[in-house]
Amino acid sequence: MVRSNSFPFDLIHSDTKTRARRGRLQLPHGVVETPAFMPVGTQGTVKGLTIDQVASTGAHILLGNTYHLSLRPTSELISELGGLHRFMGWDKPILTDSGGFQIFSLGDMNKVTEDGATFKSHLDGSVIHLRPEDSIRIQEQLGSDIAMVLDHVIALPASDEAVRDASDRSVRWAQRCKDAAVRADQAKFAIVQGGLNPEMRVQCAEQLIEIGFDGYAVGGLSVGEPPPEMYAILDKICPVLPTDQPRYLMGVGRPIDLVEGIARGVDMFDCVMPTRNGRNASAFTAEGQLKMRNLCHAKDDAPIEADCPCLACKHSRAYIRHLFQADEMLGPTLLSIHNLTFYQRLMSWARKAIEEDRFEEFLTEQRQKLA
Amino acid sequence: MVRSNSFPFDLIHSDTKTRARRGRLQLPHGVVETPAFMPVGTQGTVKGLTIDQVASTGAHILLGNTYHLSLRPTSELISELGGLHRFMGWDKPILTDSGGFQIFSLGDMNKVTEDGATFKSHLDGSVIHLRPEDSIRIQEQLGSDIAMVLDHVIALPASDEAVRDASDRSVRWAQRCKDAAVRADQAKFAIVQGGLNPEMRVQCAEQLIEIGFDGYAVGGLSVGEPPPEMYAILDKICPVLPTDQPRYLMGVGRPIDLVEGIARGVDMFDCVMPTRNGRNASAFTAEGQLKMRNLCHAKDDAPIEADCPCLACKHSRAYIRHLFQADEMLGPTLLSIHNLTFYQRLMSWARKAIEEDRFEEFLTEQRQKLA
Repeated sequence: MVRSNSFPFDLIHSDTKTRARRGRLQLPHGVVETPAFMPVGTQGTVKGLTIDQVASTGAHILLGNTYHLSLRPTSELISELGGLHRFMGWDKPILTDSGGFQIFSLGDMNKVTEDGATFKSHLDGSVIHLRPEDSIRIQEQLGSDIAMVLDHVIALPASDEAVRDASDRSVRWAQRCKDAAVRADQAKFAIVQGGLNPEMRVQCAEQLIEIGFDGYAVGGLSVGEPPPEMYAILDKICPVLPTDQPRYLMGVGRPIDLVEGIARGVDMFDCVMPTRNGRNASAFTAEGQLKMRNLCHAKDDAPIEADCPCLACKHSRAYIRHLFQADEMLGPTLLSIHNLTFYQRLMSWARKAIEEDRFEEFLTEQRQKLA
Repeated sequence: MVRSNSFPFDLIHSDTKTRARRGRLQLPHGVVETPAFMPVGTQGTVKGLTIDQVASTGAHILLGNTYHLSLRPTSELISELGGLHRFMGWDKPILTDSGGFQIFSLGDMNKVTEDGATFKSHLDGSVIHLRPEDSIRIQEQLGSDIAMVLDHVIALPASDEAVRDASDRSVRWAQRCKDAAVRADQAKFAIVQGGLNPEMRVQCAEQLIEIGFDGYAVGGLSVGEPPPEMYAILDKICPVLPTDQPRYLMGVGRPIDLVEGIARGVDMFDCVMPTRNGRNASAFTAEGQLKMRNLCHAKDDAPIEADCPCLACKHSRAYIRHLFQADEMLGPTLLSIHNLTFYQRLMSWARKAIEEDRFEEFLTEQRQKLA
C-alpha cells in the first residue's frame, strides 16, 4: 500500500513498557502534539467559550460536527463565508466527524441502505438522505483539516449478523468516501467498526488499512458498554493499526478512559464531557470530580485547583458555587474553561510521562486518583 | 458645609456651550474618568462575562446590587471572603446601590414606615426589614468604593403628597445613612428624589447638600416616563448640585439618554440595557440598534461594527446570527461584550468631545444617529 505523505505523523517516542506513543501530527492549519484531546465545537462554537478562551485551555485542535453544521447554518453558507476556520475564528486544526454517529443518536426514523442513510432532521423534521459522497462533499465545504469517513453506527448489544453487516458496509462506505474526495489538503481518517466482537474489529481494521487512509479511528464505543470491554477492544485493534499513523478513539471519554486509551496506543480523543459536566456544575480535578453546588464549597476561599492556570481558578470555590446557585451564565462558562483546561493538562502530563519513559507509573498513579 | 476631601473629584474641563463636564474621580480602588458608564454586576457577575472580559470593554467602575448580594450569598459571606472586589476578582472601583430601587421593583408586599422598608425576599419569600442603617452596614461589608444611601422609591405617576412624603423620608434616611457609616474609605452618595415635580426635586437636592455627601445621584427616573420629562428634571436639578462633586443618573439608559444626560451635567450612569439587550440578540452601534436574528444578517461577512475592537467584532454578523439561531450561549456573551464596549466607546467619544470643547456638535450628531 502506498500512502501520501501530506500529513506527516512523527513518532517522537514510544513508551517501552506500555503501548503509549508521543507523536506530532502535521496538518494544514498547524501541528498537533499527541496524545491530544479535541474539545467539541458542535455548532461552530465550543459551548459557552469564546474562541480565545478555547485557545487559552491549551487545545491544539477542535472537533466540528458535520451533521449539525450541515443542517444549520449549512455547509454551503460556511463555504461561502470562507470555511469553518474563518467562520469560528479558529486558525488551528479542525477535525470534522462524518455525521454517522449523530444520525444514529439524533436522527429520527433513520433508515440505512447500501446507498446511504435517510433520516429526519432533529430541527425541522425534514427528510434527509446522506450518502458517503455527501458527507465528504460537506466536509470539504467546511474545509476541516481532517475529514472522517461516513460509517454505519448501530446500537449495542446487537446480533453478530447485524454487527458484521454494519461493519462491512462501513468499509464499503469508507472506500466510497476516499473515491469521492477531491481536496488534497484534507486528511481522511477511516473508522473501525465491529461492535464488541474482537475478530470483526480486527477484520474491519485490516480491510480499511488495505484501502489506505491518513489515520484510523475506533468508532462505536463509549455507547454504554462497561469500560473494561472498551479497553479489551483497544487491546485487540491497536496492534494491527499502522504504527506510523495517528489513532483516534471517538467520543471518549472520562479522564481515566483517556489515560487507559493512551496506554493502549491511542493518540487522539474527543468528548463533550468536560463542557457538558461543566455546565452541570461538575468540576474535574486531578483528584476526581467535585460537585460545585455542594454546601461544603459555600465558604471555601480556595480555588478548584491551586496549580491550575485557568480563569475559574482565579476565583474561590465559594464564588463558583454562588454563580451556580444564582443561575448565572458565568458558572457554566468558568467550569467549562476549567474542565477543558484539566483535560489539556492531563494530556500534557501524559505526553511528558511518555517522553520520560515513565508512562506505566503515570498510569498506575492515575488509576488510583481518577478511577 | 465642610466636606472631606477623601474622594477628590477633579474637573478637567467644562464645556462652554453645554453643561457637559470632563472629570476624574479618585476612589480607593482607582480613578474613574467621567463621564463614565458602569456595567451592572447584579449578583457578583456582569451577566455572561468573565471579569477580564468586563475589563476589556474599557469599564473603569462596576455597579453591584446590595439587595441581591445581601440575600445571596449574603454580605456576611462576602465580607468573610475579603469583600466584593476579591469575591468577583475585580480590583477597580465598585459602586453599590442601596437596595431601595430593588425593594420597589422586586420586593413583594413591600411596606415602608419611617423606620425602614419591610418586604418579602424574591428568592424564598422570607420577610426582611431593611433600615437605612442596615443598607450602610451591608455596603460596608461588601466593601464597595461608593455606597448609596437608602431611598424611598415610589411608582409614578403619584400624588404630590405621596411624592413629597417619599422625598422627605429619603432625606431623613440619607441623614441616618451618613450617621451610621463607619468606614472612612467608602464614599457616600445621596439620592435626589421628588418624582417629576421640579420644585420638590430642587428642594430635596438642597436638603441633601445641606447634610453633605461625596456625590449626588438622581433617582426615581427612567421608570417609564417620556425621556423629555427626564431631561427637564435634569435641567432643573443639575444647576443646584455642587459643581465640584460627581453626579450620577441612576439606571439610565439608552445611548441617547446618556448623551443627553452628559449635556445637562451628569457624570455617571449605570444600566442593564447593554447586557439585557445583548442577551436578546440586539446590538448597539453608532448608527442605532441591529436585531441580530434578522435574515438580512444570515450571509453577511461584515462584523457588527468594523471599527470596534471587541471580541464579537472579530466575527461576521452571519456567525453572530448563527449563534442566536442555534441557541448557543456564546451569542449572548459576544453581544453583551459588544454592547458594553459600545457604551464605553460612546463615553470615550463624549469625554474627547468635551475636552475639545465641541460637545454641542457631538450632541447634535448623536441626536441624529441614535435617537
